[in-house]
Amino acid sequence: MKALFHVNEPDRWPRVLLNINNFLRDVGSGNASIEVVANGAGVLAYSQGKQDLIKQMEKLHGQGVVFAACRNALNMHNISEENLPFFVTVVPAGITEIVQKQAAGYAYIKP
Amino acid sequence: MKALFHVNEPDRWPRVLLNINNFLRDVGSGNASIEVVANGAGVLAYSQGKQDLIKQMEKLHGQGVVFAACRNALNMHNISEENLPFFVTVVPAGITEIVQKQAAGYAYIKP
Amino acid sequence: MKALFHVNEPDRWPRVLLNINNFLRDVGSGNASIEVVANGAGVLAYSQGKQDLIKQMEKLHGQGVVFAACRNALNMHNISEENLPFFVTVVPAGITEIVQKQAAGYAYIKP
Repeated sequence: MKALFHVNEPDRWPRVLLNINNFLRDVGSGNASIEVVANGAGVLAYSQGKQDLIKQMEKLHGQGVVFAACRNALNMHNISEENLPFFVTVVPAGITEIVQKQAAGYAYIKP
Repeated sequence: MKALFHVNEPDRWPRVLLNINNFLRDVGSGNASIEVVANGAGVLAYSQGKQDLIKQMEKLHGQGVVFAACRNALNMHNISEENLPFFVTVVPAGITEIVQKQAAGYAYIKP
Repeated sequence: MKALFHVNEPDRWPRVLLNINNFLRDVGSGNASIEVVANGAGVLAYSQGKQDLIKQMEKLHGQGVVFAACRNALNMHNISEENLPFFVTVVPAGITEIVQKQAAGYAYIKP
Protein backbone atom coordinates (compact mmCIF):
# COMPACT_ATOMS: atom_id res chain seq x y z
CA MET A 1 0.00 0.00 0.00
CA LYS A 2 1.31 3.41 -0.99
CA ALA A 3 0.27 6.62 0.70
CA LEU A 4 1.27 10.25 0.28
CA PHE A 5 0.40 12.76 3.01
CA HIS A 6 0.28 16.44 2.08
CA VAL A 7 0.95 19.03 4.79
CA ASN A 8 0.79 22.76 4.09
CA GLU A 9 -0.26 24.06 7.50
CA PRO A 10 1.95 23.69 10.58
CA ASP A 11 -0.85 22.77 12.98
CA ARG A 12 -1.71 19.64 11.01
CA TRP A 13 1.48 17.79 11.90
CA PRO A 14 0.27 16.06 15.10
CA ARG A 15 -2.71 14.75 13.15
CA VAL A 16 -0.52 13.57 10.26
CA LEU A 17 1.86 11.69 12.53
CA LEU A 18 -1.02 10.10 14.45
CA ASN A 19 -2.58 9.00 11.15
CA ILE A 20 0.68 7.43 10.01
CA ASN A 21 1.21 5.65 13.32
CA ASN A 22 -2.31 4.21 13.22
CA PHE A 23 -1.89 3.22 9.59
CA LEU A 24 1.41 1.44 10.24
CA ARG A 25 0.00 -0.37 13.28
CA ASP A 26 -2.92 -1.52 11.12
CA VAL A 27 -1.03 -2.78 8.08
CA GLY A 28 2.54 -3.33 9.34
CA SER A 29 5.49 -1.20 8.32
CA GLY A 30 6.67 -3.81 5.84
CA ASN A 31 3.45 -3.44 3.86
CA ALA A 32 3.36 0.31 3.31
CA SER A 33 5.33 2.90 1.37
CA ILE A 34 4.66 6.26 2.98
CA GLU A 35 5.81 9.73 2.03
CA VAL A 36 4.97 13.05 3.65
CA VAL A 37 5.32 16.11 1.42
CA ALA A 38 5.43 19.45 3.22
CA ASN A 39 5.08 22.67 1.28
CA GLY A 40 3.94 26.18 2.15
CA ALA A 41 3.93 26.77 5.88
CA GLY A 42 4.00 23.01 6.40
CA VAL A 43 7.81 23.10 6.20
CA LEU A 44 8.07 25.23 9.35
CA ALA A 45 7.73 22.12 11.53
CA TYR A 46 11.05 20.85 10.20
CA SER A 47 12.96 23.86 11.47
CA GLN A 48 10.84 25.33 14.25
CA GLY A 49 8.85 22.26 15.19
CA LYS A 50 8.42 21.09 18.74
CA GLN A 51 10.98 18.50 19.71
CA ASP A 52 8.40 15.80 20.35
CA LEU A 53 7.17 16.14 16.76
CA ILE A 54 10.72 15.91 15.41
CA LYS A 55 11.31 12.81 17.55
CA GLN A 56 8.15 11.18 16.24
CA MET A 57 9.23 11.96 12.66
CA GLU A 58 12.68 10.52 13.29
CA LYS A 59 11.17 7.34 14.68
CA LEU A 60 8.85 7.02 11.67
CA HIS A 61 11.78 7.69 9.35
CA GLY A 62 13.42 4.66 11.00
CA GLN A 63 10.38 2.65 9.92
CA GLY A 64 10.82 3.78 6.32
CA VAL A 65 8.62 6.86 6.14
CA VAL A 66 10.01 9.55 3.78
CA PHE A 67 9.77 13.18 4.90
CA ALA A 68 10.08 15.63 2.02
CA ALA A 69 10.30 19.43 2.01
CA CYS A 70 9.54 21.71 -0.93
CA ARG A 71 12.58 23.87 -1.77
CA ASN A 72 10.38 26.80 -2.84
CA ALA A 73 8.74 26.76 0.58
CA LEU A 74 12.09 26.54 2.38
CA ASN A 75 13.35 29.55 0.45
CA MET A 76 10.16 31.49 1.08
CA HIS A 77 10.49 30.92 4.83
CA ASN A 78 14.26 31.55 4.87
CA ILE A 79 15.03 28.04 6.10
CA SER A 80 18.54 26.88 5.32
CA GLU A 81 18.71 23.31 4.04
CA GLU A 82 21.74 22.61 6.23
CA ASN A 83 19.68 23.28 9.32
CA LEU A 84 17.05 20.68 8.51
CA PRO A 85 16.91 17.42 10.48
CA PHE A 86 19.01 14.71 8.82
CA PHE A 87 15.96 12.68 7.83
CA VAL A 88 14.38 15.40 5.64
CA THR A 89 14.64 15.06 1.85
CA VAL A 90 14.47 18.31 -0.12
CA VAL A 91 12.53 18.20 -3.41
CA PRO A 92 12.63 20.99 -6.04
CA ALA A 93 8.86 21.57 -5.97
CA GLY A 94 6.36 19.99 -3.60
CA ILE A 95 3.53 19.96 -6.13
CA THR A 96 5.65 18.14 -8.70
CA GLU A 97 6.47 15.50 -6.08
CA ILE A 98 2.79 15.10 -5.20
CA VAL A 99 1.78 14.74 -8.85
CA GLN A 100 4.54 12.23 -9.59
CA LYS A 101 3.76 10.08 -6.56
CA GLN A 102 0.07 9.91 -7.43
CA ALA A 103 1.03 8.94 -10.97
CA ALA A 104 3.13 6.17 -9.39
CA GLY A 105 0.09 4.79 -7.56
CA TYR A 106 0.29 6.58 -4.22
CA ALA A 107 -3.02 7.45 -2.60
CA TYR A 108 -3.32 11.15 -1.68
CA ILE A 109 -4.32 12.09 1.85
CA LYS A 110 -4.74 15.62 3.19
CA PRO A 111 -5.12 15.42 6.98
CA MET B 1 -18.10 6.88 -11.00
CA LYS B 2 -16.47 6.20 -7.68
CA ALA B 3 -15.87 8.86 -5.05
CA LEU B 4 -14.42 8.83 -1.54
CA PHE B 5 -15.01 11.80 0.75
CA HIS B 6 -12.62 12.30 3.67
CA VAL B 7 -13.89 14.12 6.76
CA ASN B 8 -11.65 14.81 9.75
CA GLU B 9 -13.21 18.02 11.06
CA PRO B 10 -16.78 18.13 12.41
CA ASP B 11 -17.70 21.44 10.80
CA ARG B 12 -17.15 20.07 7.28
CA TRP B 13 -20.15 17.74 7.38
CA PRO B 14 -22.80 20.11 5.99
CA ARG B 15 -20.48 20.81 3.06
CA VAL B 16 -19.79 17.11 2.49
CA LEU B 17 -23.48 16.20 2.46
CA LEU B 18 -24.31 19.11 0.12
CA ASN B 19 -21.52 17.98 -2.22
CA ILE B 20 -22.86 14.43 -2.27
CA ASN B 21 -26.44 15.57 -2.89
CA ASN B 22 -25.33 17.77 -5.78
CA PHE B 23 -23.16 14.98 -7.19
CA LEU B 24 -26.00 12.43 -7.03
CA ARG B 25 -28.44 14.86 -8.62
CA ASP B 26 -25.94 15.44 -11.42
CA VAL B 27 -25.06 11.82 -12.23
CA GLY B 28 -27.92 9.79 -10.77
CA SER B 29 -27.61 7.51 -7.76
CA GLY B 30 -27.39 4.42 -9.96
CA ASN B 31 -24.21 5.73 -11.55
CA ALA B 32 -22.09 6.46 -8.49
CA SER B 33 -20.37 4.49 -5.74
CA ILE B 34 -19.84 6.87 -2.83
CA GLU B 35 -18.13 6.35 0.50
CA VAL B 36 -17.52 8.84 3.27
CA VAL B 37 -14.63 8.03 5.61
CA ALA B 38 -14.61 9.93 8.90
CA ASN B 39 -11.54 9.87 11.10
CA GLY B 40 -10.13 12.19 13.75
CA ALA B 41 -12.75 14.61 15.05
CA GLY B 42 -14.83 13.88 11.95
CA VAL B 43 -16.42 10.92 13.77
CA LEU B 44 -18.03 13.21 16.36
CA ALA B 45 -20.89 13.98 13.97
CA TYR B 46 -21.99 10.34 14.16
CA SER B 47 -22.54 10.48 17.92
CA GLN B 48 -23.03 14.14 18.76
CA GLY B 49 -24.16 15.41 15.37
CA LYS B 50 -27.20 17.56 14.87
CA GLN B 51 -30.29 15.55 14.06
CA ASP B 52 -30.76 17.16 10.65
CA LEU B 53 -27.26 15.97 9.63
CA ILE B 54 -27.99 12.43 10.84
CA LYS B 55 -31.27 12.47 8.88
CA GLN B 56 -29.49 13.61 5.73
CA MET B 57 -26.91 10.84 6.18
CA GLU B 58 -29.64 8.25 6.69
CA LYS B 59 -31.39 9.39 3.52
CA LEU B 60 -28.14 9.20 1.55
CA HIS B 61 -27.44 5.78 3.03
CA GLY B 62 -30.79 4.76 1.54
CA GLN B 63 -29.43 5.84 -1.85
CA GLY B 64 -26.37 3.61 -1.39
CA VAL B 65 -23.86 5.99 0.18
CA VAL B 66 -21.52 4.22 2.65
CA PHE B 67 -20.67 6.04 5.90
CA ALA B 68 -17.53 4.71 7.56
CA ALA B 69 -15.96 5.55 10.93
CA CYS B 70 -12.34 4.93 11.93
CA ARG B 71 -12.18 2.72 15.04
CA ASN B 72 -9.05 4.49 16.31
CA ALA B 73 -10.93 7.78 16.20
CA LEU B 74 -13.98 6.32 17.94
CA ASN B 75 -11.76 5.00 20.74
CA MET B 76 -9.90 8.29 21.04
CA HIS B 77 -13.17 10.17 21.46
CA ASN B 78 -14.72 7.54 23.76
CA ILE B 79 -17.54 6.78 21.37
CA SER B 80 -19.09 3.36 21.86
CA GLU B 81 -19.76 1.52 18.61
CA GLU B 82 -23.16 0.39 19.88
CA ASN B 83 -24.29 3.99 20.12
CA LEU B 84 -23.57 4.77 16.48
CA PRO B 85 -26.45 5.21 14.03
CA PHE B 86 -27.35 1.90 12.34
CA PHE B 87 -26.03 3.06 8.96
CA VAL B 88 -22.42 3.62 10.11
CA THR B 89 -19.78 1.04 9.18
CA VAL B 90 -16.77 0.83 11.49
CA VAL B 91 -13.39 0.26 9.81
CA PRO B 92 -10.19 -0.68 11.71
CA ALA B 93 -8.23 2.35 10.45
CA GLY B 94 -9.56 5.25 8.40
CA ILE B 95 -6.31 5.82 6.55
CA THR B 96 -6.12 2.18 5.44
CA GLU B 97 -9.67 2.46 4.11
CA ILE B 98 -8.80 5.64 2.21
CA VAL B 99 -5.69 4.07 0.69
CA GLN B 100 -7.51 0.91 -0.33
CA LYS B 101 -10.41 2.75 -1.92
CA GLN B 102 -8.09 4.95 -3.98
CA ALA B 103 -6.24 1.82 -5.09
CA ALA B 104 -9.65 0.47 -6.15
CA GLY B 105 -10.25 3.49 -8.39
CA TYR B 106 -12.12 5.83 -6.09
CA ALA B 107 -11.44 9.54 -6.55
CA TYR B 108 -10.39 11.30 -3.33
CA ILE B 109 -12.21 14.45 -2.28
CA LYS B 110 -11.49 16.51 0.84
CA PRO B 111 -14.32 19.04 1.25
CA MET C 1 1.83 15.57 -15.84
CA LYS C 2 -1.79 16.19 -14.98
CA ALA C 3 -2.92 18.03 -11.87
CA LEU C 4 -6.30 19.08 -10.52
CA PHE C 5 -6.47 21.70 -7.78
CA HIS C 6 -9.61 21.82 -5.63
CA VAL C 7 -10.60 25.13 -4.02
CA ASN C 8 -13.63 25.45 -1.77
CA GLU C 9 -12.50 28.27 0.52
CA PRO C 10 -11.83 31.78 -0.78
CA ASP C 11 -8.70 32.37 1.30
CA ARG C 12 -6.87 29.46 -0.33
CA TRP C 13 -6.56 31.15 -3.71
CA PRO C 14 -3.20 32.92 -3.19
CA ARG C 15 -1.74 29.58 -2.10
CA VAL C 16 -3.24 27.74 -5.09
CA LEU C 17 -1.89 30.24 -7.60
CA LEU C 18 1.55 30.20 -5.97
CA ASN C 19 1.56 26.39 -6.11
CA ILE C 20 0.67 26.43 -9.80
CA ASN C 21 3.31 29.03 -10.63
CA ASN C 22 5.98 27.03 -8.81
CA PHE C 23 4.82 23.82 -10.47
CA LEU C 24 4.91 25.36 -13.96
CA ARG C 25 8.33 26.87 -13.34
CA ASP C 26 9.57 23.44 -12.26
CA VAL C 27 8.18 21.32 -15.10
CA GLY C 28 7.52 23.83 -17.90
CA SER C 29 4.06 24.81 -19.09
CA GLY C 30 4.29 22.49 -22.09
CA ASN C 31 4.60 19.48 -19.78
CA ALA C 32 1.58 19.96 -17.55
CA SER C 33 -2.20 19.84 -17.88
CA ILE C 34 -3.63 21.83 -14.99
CA GLU C 35 -7.21 22.44 -13.96
CA VAL C 36 -8.53 24.33 -10.96
CA VAL C 37 -12.04 23.38 -9.83
CA ALA C 38 -13.74 25.86 -7.51
CA ASN C 39 -16.89 24.89 -5.68
CA GLY C 40 -18.57 26.06 -2.49
CA ALA C 41 -17.27 29.44 -1.37
CA GLY C 42 -14.25 28.92 -3.60
CA VAL C 43 -16.19 30.43 -6.51
CA LEU C 44 -16.41 33.81 -4.77
CA ALA C 45 -12.91 34.71 -5.94
CA TYR C 46 -14.13 34.68 -9.54
CA SER C 47 -16.69 37.42 -8.92
CA GLN C 48 -15.48 39.26 -5.84
CA GLY C 49 -11.82 38.39 -5.98
CA LYS C 50 -9.08 40.93 -5.64
CA GLN C 51 -7.88 42.21 -9.00
CA ASP C 52 -4.35 40.91 -8.53
CA LEU C 53 -5.73 37.37 -8.11
CA ILE C 54 -7.85 37.71 -11.24
CA LYS C 55 -4.81 38.98 -13.15
CA GLN C 56 -2.73 36.04 -11.98
CA MET C 57 -5.49 33.64 -13.07
CA GLU C 58 -5.74 35.32 -16.47
CA LYS C 59 -2.00 35.00 -16.96
CA LEU C 60 -2.09 31.32 -15.98
CA HIS C 61 -5.06 30.80 -18.30
CA GLY C 62 -2.78 32.13 -21.05
CA GLN C 63 -0.36 29.34 -20.17
CA GLY C 64 -3.11 26.73 -20.56
CA VAL C 65 -4.46 26.43 -17.02
CA VAL C 66 -8.21 25.72 -16.94
CA PHE C 67 -10.29 27.55 -14.32
CA ALA C 68 -13.63 25.85 -13.65
CA ALA C 69 -16.58 26.95 -11.51
CA CYS C 70 -19.31 24.69 -10.14
CA ARG C 71 -22.74 25.88 -11.33
CA ASN C 72 -24.41 24.77 -8.08
CA ALA C 73 -22.00 26.98 -6.15
CA LEU C 74 -22.56 29.94 -8.49
CA ASN C 75 -26.32 29.63 -8.02
CA MET C 76 -25.98 29.29 -4.25
CA HIS C 77 -23.95 32.48 -4.08
CA ASN C 78 -26.15 34.36 -6.60
CA ILE C 79 -23.31 34.81 -9.05
CA SER C 80 -24.45 35.36 -12.61
CA GLU C 81 -22.46 33.39 -15.19
CA GLU C 82 -22.34 36.42 -17.48
CA ASN C 83 -20.41 38.35 -14.87
CA LEU C 84 -17.61 35.81 -14.59
CA PRO C 85 -14.18 36.58 -16.07
CA PHE C 86 -13.92 35.37 -19.67
CA PHE C 87 -11.45 32.63 -18.76
CA VAL C 88 -13.77 30.77 -16.34
CA THR C 89 -15.42 27.56 -17.53
CA VAL C 90 -18.70 26.64 -15.82
CA VAL C 91 -19.25 22.93 -15.07
CA PRO C 92 -22.61 21.47 -13.98
CA ALA C 93 -21.24 20.04 -10.72
CA GLY C 94 -17.78 20.54 -9.28
CA ILE C 95 -17.63 17.12 -7.65
CA THR C 96 -18.46 15.36 -10.91
CA GLU C 97 -15.65 17.27 -12.59
CA ILE C 98 -13.20 16.31 -9.83
CA VAL C 99 -14.19 12.64 -10.04
CA GLN C 100 -13.93 12.55 -13.83
CA LYS C 101 -10.54 14.25 -13.91
CA GLN C 102 -9.09 11.83 -11.37
CA ALA C 103 -10.49 8.94 -13.41
CA ALA C 104 -8.66 10.49 -16.40
CA GLY C 105 -5.35 10.38 -14.53
CA TYR C 106 -5.20 13.81 -12.93
CA ALA C 107 -3.54 13.98 -9.52
CA TYR C 108 -5.72 15.62 -6.85
CA ILE C 109 -4.31 18.46 -4.79
CA LYS C 110 -6.13 20.37 -2.05
CA PRO C 111 -4.01 23.40 -1.12
